[in-house]
Amino acid sequence: MKCNNLAIALVHYPVYNKHNEVVTSALTNLDQHDIARSAKTYGLDRFYIVTPSEEQRKLAERISKHWQQGWGAEYNPDRRQALDIVQVTPSIESAVADFQTGFNKTVKLAVTGAAERSGATSIGTFKKFIQEEAQPYILLLGTGWGLTKEVFATADLILEPIAGNGSYNHLSVRSAAAIMLDRILGTERKDTQTHTASIIEEEDN
Amino acid sequence: MKCNNLAIALVHYPVYNKHNEVVTSALTNLDQHDIARSAKTYGLDRFYIVTPSEEQRKLAERISKHWQQGWGAEYNPDRRQALDIVQVTPSIESAVADFQTGFNKTVKLAVTGAAERSGATSIGTFKKFIQEEAQPYILLLGTGWGLTKEVFATADLILEPIAGNGSYNHLSVRSAAAIMLDRILGTERKDTQTHTASIIEEEDN
Repeated sequence: MKCNNLAIALVHYPVYNKHNEVVTSALTNLDQHDIARSAKTYGLDRFYIVTPSEEQRKLAERISKHWQQGWGAEYNPDRRQALDIVQVTPSIESAVADFQTGFNKTVKLAVTGAAERSGATSIGTFKKFIQEEAQPYILLLGTGWGLTKEVFATADLILEPIAGNGSYNHLSVRSAAAIMLDRILGTERKDTQTHTASIIEEEDN
Repeated sequence: MKCNNLAIALVHYPVYNKHNEVVTSALTNLDQHDIARSAKTYGLDRFYIVTPSEEQRKLAERISKHWQQGWGAEYNPDRRQALDIVQVTPSIESAVADFQTGFNKTVKLAVTGAAERSGATSIGTFKKFIQEEAQPYILLLGTGWGLTKEVFATADLILEPIAGNGSYNHLSVRSAAAIMLDRILGTERKDTQTHTASIIEEEDN
C-alpha cells in the first residue's frame, strides 16, 4: 500500500527551547536520514523539513544532494531513495501548500508531543482516518522542547502521545517518528513457523 | 509494567560490512542515546552495548558518564536516567552472563534483521512469550550490514523483520529498535475524545 494521503513534517520553528522560549532549532543530520528512511519504508511520498533559516535549508539540501548525486549516491543507493522524498521548506504553511497540490480536499494538520492533552485522538482512530478517508494529513513533529501551544491550538487533530511502560517518556524525535509511522501504517506479520512449547525447547539445542 | 525479562543488545561484533566481511563496527554516539531512551521508555532494565574493542568500550562509558555525572547530568537529567540502564560489555556471551544473574531460567537470544528468513517468529508471538513466560530474553540488534549468519544459527529465536509498505526496508537500527520495543511492549491508548464525522468538521474551524 502506498500511503499518499499522509506526509510527515519535522518542524524547527516555532518550537520551544529548554527555557520555554520560542526559537528556531538547529537541524540534526541524523534526523534527516533516519526519518527519511522510516518514511520511505512506510510508503510516504513526502517528508518535509521545516525551517525558516535559509542557511539551514541550504544545509539540508546539501545533505540530500550528497546522497542523491554525489559520492554517497553510488556508495549507498538505498539512502538516495529515502532522501528523494525530502522536501525542505520554510514554514508549516509552505509544507501544506506543497502537499495540497496533490489533493482536492483541504490538507489537515495532526500534531503530537510527549505531554498528555485533553481531546487527544488515539493513533488507532487516526489510522482509520488515513485508511478510510481520502483526506490528506500532515503529521507535525516538533524538535527542541516541542511545538508551541499556538501550533497545537491551530491543528486539526491532536494525537495521543506514545505510551511506554512507566513514567519515563523521553523518546528521540527519530524514535517517535518511527513508532508513529509503524502504528499508523505498519502491518503485523504471521509466524512462518508454528510454535509450541516443545518446538521452542528443541530450538534450545 | 516493568519488563525485567527482556533486555536489548546493540552488537558491534560479529557483524558484516558492506563487502560481507566480518568486522567490528564503530560505535555511533546517537545509537547509544536513542536506544537507551527508547529502552527506558519501554521499561527495560538493561541495554547492552557489545564491542570487543576496549577503546570503543571506554568511549561508550565516557558518553554515559558525561550525562550521568558531568555537566550533562545537570543540564538534562532525563538523559541520565536513560543512560543508567546502559551496560558496556565485550561480547554477546558476557551480556548473557550479566543478564543471567537475575534469573534461574537460562537466558535465550532473539535475533532480528532486515532480511526474510524461514522459521521466523512473529513479533506478536514473541510479545506473548515475554508477557506469559518468566523466560529472560536478550534481543540482539546488529550494526553495520547486520549480524553474522553464525549468530543467527546459534540464536534461540529469529524474529520476523519489520514490514513497511513496500519493497523499501532500510530503517536505521535506532528506528528499528524503537519499533520493535513498541510492538513488543507498547500499549495502545483510547481516544480521550469521541470522534464522529461532525466533530471532526467542527475541529476544522
